[in-house]
Amino acid sequence: MTEKKRTTIILFSGDYDKAMAAYIIANGAAAYDHEVTIFHTFWGLNALRKDEQVTVKKGFMEKMFAKMMPRGADKMGLSNMNFAGFGPKMIKGVMKKHNAVPLPDLIEMAQDQDIKLVACTMTMDLLGLHQEELLDGIEYAGVAAYLADAEDGKVNLFI
Amino acid sequence: MTEKKRTTIILFSGDYDKAMAAYIIANGAAAYDHEVTIFHTFWGLNALRKDEQVTVKKGFMEKMFAKMMPRGADKMGLSNMNFAGFGPKMIKGVMKKHNAVPLPDLIEMAQDQDIKLVACTMTMDLLGLHQEELLDGIEYAGVAAYLADAEDGKVNLFI
Amino acid sequence: MTEKKRTTIILFSGDYDKAMAAYIIANGAAAYDHEVTIFHTFWGLNALRKDEQVTVKKGFMEKMFAKMMPRGADKMGLSNMNFAGFGPKMIKGVMKKHNAVPLPDLIEMAQDQDIKLVACTMTMDLLGLHQEELLDGIEYAGVAAYLADAEDGKVNLFI
Repeated sequence: MTEKKRTTIILFSGDYDKAMAAYIIANGAAAYDHEVTIFHTFWGLNALRKDEQVTVKKGFMEKMFAKMMPRGADKMGLSNMNFAGFGPKMIKGVMKKHNAVPLPDLIEMAQDQDIKLVACTMTMDLLGLHQEELLDGIEYAGVAAYLADAEDGKVNLFI
Repeated sequence: MTEKKRTTIILFSGDYDKAMAAYIIANGAAAYDHEVTIFHTFWGLNALRKDEQVTVKKGFMEKMFAKMMPRGADKMGLSNMNFAGFGPKMIKGVMKKHNAVPLPDLIEMAQDQDIKLVACTMTMDLLGLHQEELLDGIEYAGVAAYLADAEDGKVNLFI
Repeated sequence: MTEKKRTTIILFSGDYDKAMAAYIIANGAAAYDHEVTIFHTFWGLNALRKDEQVTVKKGFMEKMFAKMMPRGADKMGLSNMNFAGFGPKMIKGVMKKHNAVPLPDLIEMAQDQDIKLVACTMTMDLLGLHQEELLDGIEYAGVAAYLADAEDGKVNLFI
């Protein structure tokens, strides 16, 4: 019995391009038969937000964060050359031209490949994000669960 | 005799939120009995600055850097939604509300847990930072020392 | 026969300081006899651009990217305190004063030490970069090749 290789990625960044890199590596690793975990924390949680508005009760600060943060993968900005939202349009333009897979589809593909998508409960709390606002079929955990996976990881990245 | 697991983190970033992530992972790993090293380089050195002013002799460039860089963990900005300093206030507000541990306390906790805090001497030199300006009880080393630790690391991250 | 240790770095960032960190770690690891791969993707590809203009046929979007992105390591900005280009001048100033090795020389040193410099073909495509525009002596590959190296890596970083 051979042990399965494992890859873990902490997705901290809320940038479209960095999240793309994370999901491309993750999907690649899963295709090569790794067990893969993506642990979404801080701004990386935005990649897991549903794109429709979900009504949940929030305090003032939590409402502010909810309003200011992008709702879902498709609305995220770029880490570089964002140009007030023009950069993402350019990137999506060239991606379409080159038949590259857009981020929301990469996330769906990850779920199809049984990549474990985890939302960090501690930072969900801080940013006031509720489970109802995030995609279905993901897991909820803290740093201990991340470490348990990463200890066995061949490839562990922080993005 | 079982070998202790090891976690190493390079803290390159000078952002409050990224440093928080680094110290939360580090403290978590130490709680699970890992030997942990945080290697502070470039802007990550700011997390180790004392918050009072320390009088040391500096050249012009070094004075400029010293003035422009945040003095200590509590004064660092956010990687995202910094809004000219308003973002950190918001984050600290929600952290207080949710009883999350602020960064300076996370650093103290790390020292209590015997996490090895290292300042990169090469970048201290570049940014004109002197040992007197940094917290007590930390170590000073270069990339060779980092690599020696990371070679044995189960979890190695660059933040 | 002992196996050689391996270090892999994904250089995603197009920032001068982050690329410096990547190349310092890489050169250090090579000096300690690691086999080292730097996999350049997204903005990290700019570190591999030749500094002269190379005439290649491009579409409109690709021309835009080519114009807006820095041509080569020496023209990259800082991740922090960039101040519209003044930050890099300051850093290069103090680097000169402290005899630190500038980025273009670190890249040359990496090539001399047989560090494998890889350009990500998928993102080259997206950003419209052609092989003629990048340094000689580098390799071209995708995520599968990265994973094959990283699986055996002792130290795997995403920068």
